[in-house]
Amino acid sequence: MEIKTYLAENQNRILDELFELLRIPSISAISSYKSEMFRCAEGLKTSLLAAGADKVEVCETEGNPVVFGEKFISKNLPTILVYGHYDVMPVEPLDLWNSPPFEPQIRDGKIFARGADDDKGQLFIHIKAFEFLCKTNTLNCNIKFMFEGEEEVGSTSLEKFCAENREKLHSDFILVSDTSMLSKEVPSLTAGLRGLCYMEVEVTGPNRDLHSGHFGGAVANPINILAKMISQLHNSDNKIAIPHFYDDVIELSQEERNEMAKAPFDIEKYKNSLSVNEIWGEKNYSTLERVGIRPCLDVNGIWGGYIGEGTKTVLPSKAFAKISMRLVPNQNPDVIAQLFEKYFVSLAPQSVKVQVKYSHGGNAYSTPIQMSAYQAASLAVEKTFGKKPVPYKSGGSIPIIATFEKVLGTKTILMGFGLDTDAIHSPNENFPVETFFKGIETIVLFHQYLKEV
Amino acid sequence: MEIKTYLAENQNRILDELFELLRIPSISAISSYKSEMFRCAEGLKTSLLAAGADKVEVCETEGNPVVFGEKFISKNLPTILVYGHYDVMPVEPLDLWNSPPFEPQIRDGKIFARGADDDKGQLFIHIKAFEFLCKTNTLNCNIKFMFEGEEEVGSTSLEKFCAENREKLHSDFILVSDTSMLSKEVPSLTAGLRGLCYMEVEVTGPNRDLHSGHFGGAVANPINILAKMISQLHNSDNKIAIPHFYDDVIELSQEERNEMAKAPFDIEKYKNSLSVNEIWGEKNYSTLERVGIRPCLDVNGIWGGYIGEGTKTVLPSKAFAKISMRLVPNQNPDVIAQLFEKYFVSLAPQSVKVQVKYSHGGNAYSTPIQMSAYQAASLAVEKTFGKKPVPYKSGGSIPIIATFEKVLGTKTILMGFGLDTDAIHSPNENFPVETFFKGIETIVLFHQYLKEV
Repeated sequence: MEIKTYLAENQNRILDELFELLRIPSISAISSYKSEMFRCAEGLKTSLLAAGADKVEVCETEGNPVVFGEKFISKNLPTILVYGHYDVMPVEPLDLWNSPPFEPQIRDGKIFARGADDDKGQLFIHIKAFEFLCKTNTLNCNIKFMFEGEEEVGSTSLEKFCAENREKLHSDFILVSDTSMLSKEVPSLTAGLRGLCYMEVEVTGPNRDLHSGHFGGAVANPINILAKMISQLHNSDNKIAIPHFYDDVIELSQEERNEMAKAPFDIEKYKNSLSVNEIWGEKNYSTLERVGIRPCLDVNGIWGGYIGEGTKTVLPSKAFAKISMRLVPNQNPDVIAQLFEKYFVSLAPQSVKVQVKYSHGGNAYSTPIQMSAYQAASLAVEKTFGKKPVPYKSGGSIPIIATFEKVLGTKTILMGFGLDTDAIHSPNENFPVETFFKGIETIVLFHQYLKEV
Repeated sequence: MEIKTYLAENQNRILDELFELLRIPSISAISSYKSEMFRCAEGLKTSLLAAGADKVEVCETEGNPVVFGEKFISKNLPTILVYGHYDVMPVEPLDLWNSPPFEPQIRDGKIFARGADDDKGQLFIHIKAFEFLCKTNTLNCNIKFMFEGEEEVGSTSLEKFCAENREKLHSDFILVSDTSMLSKEVPSLTAGLRGLCYMEVEVTGPNRDLHSGHFGGAVANPINILAKMISQLHNSDNKIAIPHFYDDVIELSQEERNEMAKAPFDIEKYKNSLSVNEIWGEKNYSTLERVGIRPCLDVNGIWGGYIGEGTKTVLPSKAFAKISMRLVPNQNPDVIAQLFEKYFVSLAPQSVKVQVKYSHGGNAYSTPIQMSAYQAASLAVEKTFGKKPVPYKSGGSIPIIATFEKVLGTKTILMGFGLDTDAIHSPNENFPVETFFKGIETIVLFHQYLKEV
């Protein structure tokens, strides 16, 4: 049976199964959702067994469980390890969602739900491709699945899990769908990821909230101070001002940059899609370079004082921010965390106290595009999307990919089907129904091409 | 009967009545508390009638109601208008309160509740002093009461109410207890108040929350931009950097500053009480000058991006801040609001959009300390607190006091009994039981001295 026919005949059932998965609010950042993580892991176990896995375990860790499943065919065949994550981002601000984030809905041909793309939708593509290969008896490799529940909070437990299960996780390469394509018209394969270093800071002024009339002007306001400290994290060229931050960054040659500049990119379309009058970024680099090959620093959250309706004349005791840096190959997140802390603390005047916490981090990653698995992926995408995919450096981070290389010694193929318009991490996250099914088709083709290249 | 005896005999009843008032969550900043405002106004009407008022009205306004009551004795006697406010500040952060803000409790001789001092406790002093004067037939002036419910949100409706009721509100002077003393050991009378100009700002970057990996470094982050804009509101001398901000500020003469410097003030005690290693403020001015005679600017609240537990790698669409300025005599809040807006908007790069809203404002105020009513207040405080009170310039704002002068043509005596340790506007607001009853005694004495000075 053809994969297209199979999908047409089973479309409703497959969508129902995906929706069941999307209904589970598996938010890893919020500890009160712990039981949902287990419910989600058990759901995946059921799906894998139904699809044709020999055995599936829900493996407990210090954090959320890892789902491990496998199907063994022959020791003479290559082995693929499919990785994905079933945890999702928080959903705030809730009032910007047009439908509840955990009640999936199809509108305008798109599935709207938290996790529709990142990563439940994309990992489910692999389960359904596997189901087809098993049902049609066409699976021509050994396959393993590892789905974790902590990717959005730094894959805290997975490094240990990998280190303790090296043999079990042994594979020829790892296959991951947790990235995006440049656009519908410009299919691409991610050939690199940025690293991450996520910090949380707290600035304390007076020991209690004060009346801003009685004390204003005479006591340091931690919000004003924090704002000033944040303003000193970039210099006037929008470079990161932390001393030694760029020390380990490898500058690309002009030739490499010329090669990158060939990727199709329309700056006016980009600005229009974001409704911004002007782009922003490090001087002397293009937009694609700024997200692909250059590190950056963003405040991801800030809060302090009175943030409710109306007004309150308070001089608050504390102000807080969550600040993350995206890193490029050769930068070490632990070193960067130290540099950040040292510099940030040095910016504080005597009138406040500062606390800096390193939340989590991960290294950047590069795919060698000469690998046969990369070639098979490229052929499969070309077949289903109609164009040879561009190998491109994504600005995102999947810190665990670098960890796989370090701990398991295995390279990863990043074969993602997302689009920027999928609004991952944002309100109204969505995944086009067409992309979802095209993804399943592409993965089935990938398995076929794998024995040919 | 002596006032001391009266208070001793009625102590429990009086506290019960105050507690009943404190239990009403009359938060004017949050519109859903509207019905509580009416409940509070009706409660005050009952209290005033029980104390001996001839008649009391709850007067509707476009905002919260004004309670007006009076007792007329003779047209040959002077008339006092007592002003107070029954609305209170919001209570966040709730988790820092040791007991619920609207369940008053006495601990360590202090009444803990939102409004215990500001201003329900202080206005109740006047009702109970009035009760004594009526019961003992010793009231020797005509008295009027005006209690509003919008002081904490800029007394929005009261200017109109005053303009429409000039005759009804006519008095020889206005008496207000809504301020603090320098300390228990240094009794004081407030001889000046700062004005206020409260702004709300919104910075918009991209049209939706973005993934900080895919876009970070290439799109302006509104939090980083807002932080930079806020950092430019002060210069390196901690002066406010808004052009023309100081144009209308009248600099005090060196003699006046020398006179001010005689007020007792212990900088080490001040720092210790706030747990700060260093004070902060405008260069070349003392702490008392910084809060008394100099304007200032504080961010009262800031928020944007992900502020929940854990981490989220978002490049947010918007960032917000509430920013207020305290003004000194001769500065016009409407002019300052315009200067702020013009400057703030000028700080924004092309990559973001900025909205600035002027919430409310009020003029600064000075009491002429030669007035006989001021002299009577001074004598009364000297009698009960044991020391002649220092006339001092408070840093706080009661914008309506300047409005009274403008609209009613009447001066105000600021006879407040608060202390900095009362934590008004903060968690664990409190008012010492002793101060509350001493306040009643002092107001009764004030009435006696008024005919003597």
